[in-house]
Amino acid sequence: MITSSNNSKLKNLKLLQQKAKARKEQDVFVTEGVKMFLEAEPDRIKEVFLSESFAKKTEYQPYWKELPVEIVSDEIFAKASDTVTPQGVLCVQKQYHYSLDPILSKKTPLCILLEDIQDPGNLGTILRTAEGAGVDGVILSKGCVDIYNPKTVRATMGSLYRVPFMYTEDLEQTIQTLQQKKVQVYAAHLQGKTYYHNKQFQTGTAFLMGNEGNGLRENTAKLADDYIKIPMEGQLESLNVAVATALLVYEAKRQRS
Amino acid sequence: MITSSNNSKLKNLKLLQQKAKARKEQDVFVTEGVKMFLEAEPDRIKEVFLSESFAKKTEYQPYWKELPVEIVSDEIFAKASDTVTPQGVLCVQKQYHYSLDPILSKKTPLCILLEDIQDPGNLGTILRTAEGAGVDGVILSKGCVDIYNPKTVRATMGSLYRVPFMYTEDLEQTIQTLQQKKVQVYAAHLQGKTYYHNKQFQTGTAFLMGNEGNGLRENTAKLADDYIKIPMEGQLESLNVAVATALLVYEAKRQRS
Repeated sequence: MITSSNNSKLKNLKLLQQKAKARKEQDVFVTEGVKMFLEAEPDRIKEVFLSESFAKKTEYQPYWKELPVEIVSDEIFAKASDTVTPQGVLCVQKQYHYSLDPILSKKTPLCILLEDIQDPGNLGTILRTAEGAGVDGVILSKGCVDIYNPKTVRATMGSLYRVPFMYTEDLEQTIQTLQQKKVQVYAAHLQGKTYYHNKQFQTGTAFLMGNEGNGLRENTAKLADDYIKIPMEGQLESLNVAVATALLVYEAKRQRS
Repeated sequence: MITSSNNSKLKNLKLLQQKAKARKEQDVFVTEGVKMFLEAEPDRIKEVFLSESFAKKTEYQPYWKELPVEIVSDEIFAKASDTVTPQGVLCVQKQYHYSLDPILSKKTPLCILLEDIQDPGNLGTILRTAEGAGVDGVILSKGCVDIYNPKTVRATMGSLYRVPFMYTEDLEQTIQTLQQKKVQVYAAHLQGKTYYHNKQFQTGTAFLMGNEGNGLRENTAKLADDYIKIPMEGQLESLNVAVATALLVYEAKRQRS
């Protein structure tokens, strides 16, 4: 049993929780909690850290008996945990590597394109909503926050396991690739003239969403086939980006069902 | 100029940032940042704390010249700030006290009822979305997080100044009051049989939204006139509560426009 935070495996775990670079180099990410553990694909699990108390719970033992497990004293586990009330299970898993082809091979793909989203919670919520709306893929500019950030992972509520996503080195190039495959790219934009619920999203559709503070870069927005806007009362300049994305993908879902 | 964190005014400011109880007792809340300062009603402002650097910016001087201002050295201001890159202005303002009557005197009120929402960011995002959708009032159970929590205030993006809201000691009673005024109360509920976009929200409408982890209490849900559900693909159990609320109020807005 691990009883010291100086343990090299725990030190690496901490590094993986804190640094996107370390996660990338080791090609892994960390999940926390029972639900995220039970929903994980066993083949992806590289290492499981259990608190002493959790390891004693007989109902969960069948799920980890065959896995590479480290038991950690409750006190030290609490320090390794990213949450205030740790559930007692941390899990190191292999990262996902999706490509664009399976997404674009759908008959009428529904995609989300994200430019430079900074808030981990927003990104996680977008992934969660994407699953709910049946989105085929989420494509992220390289300036977006790391999707394996623990806060993002938590906010996805497991959708990270199920929604295809990929980072693109060149968002402009990716937009053009989508357009060549007859996917209409709609930019959510204050200069949009048509409300989103008056547009047709039954054919291949991608929604292009910009950074929380600055919106879309001009060069990126220019590439869109069309601008759409979300009506707003009051004195608001914009909606939260996860909310705006939800309104758009759920409108597409409604039209397609 | 204040040059020490031991200054009694700064100590009280910190207390107000940290403790809902202190905010309630003093009947004030704290906003941070230039936008929140410029959009504030001057009559509500009780105290303004400016960093030395901000105070030197001539373009903002007309906005604070007539107000009770304390200048704080940049170093000490950074400690008082709740953000990583402080903009240099913190503002103590009087709390709002709305009542239900003006909300219910509207011809076809559109309301949000929140039960035990815990995440400050979610609550702030709900208020922001409420402004965008033209919601007439947000009613919170006493178990909800404090709306004057600095994270909530920030997430509202100024909507806190413009959307009427109130805490109720007795949510069940408030639901019945709404119903007596012919407001239909819809619970967002997994047991809902009808999708939200197949319902009519042109008459007085309130959406009843439950806690992030547990949903609505059974006794509360029972009082609703109807259950509605949001369609979900995949293996999701639920959407983020701010996202779910947005889908509902924007559907109401769409039908009403």
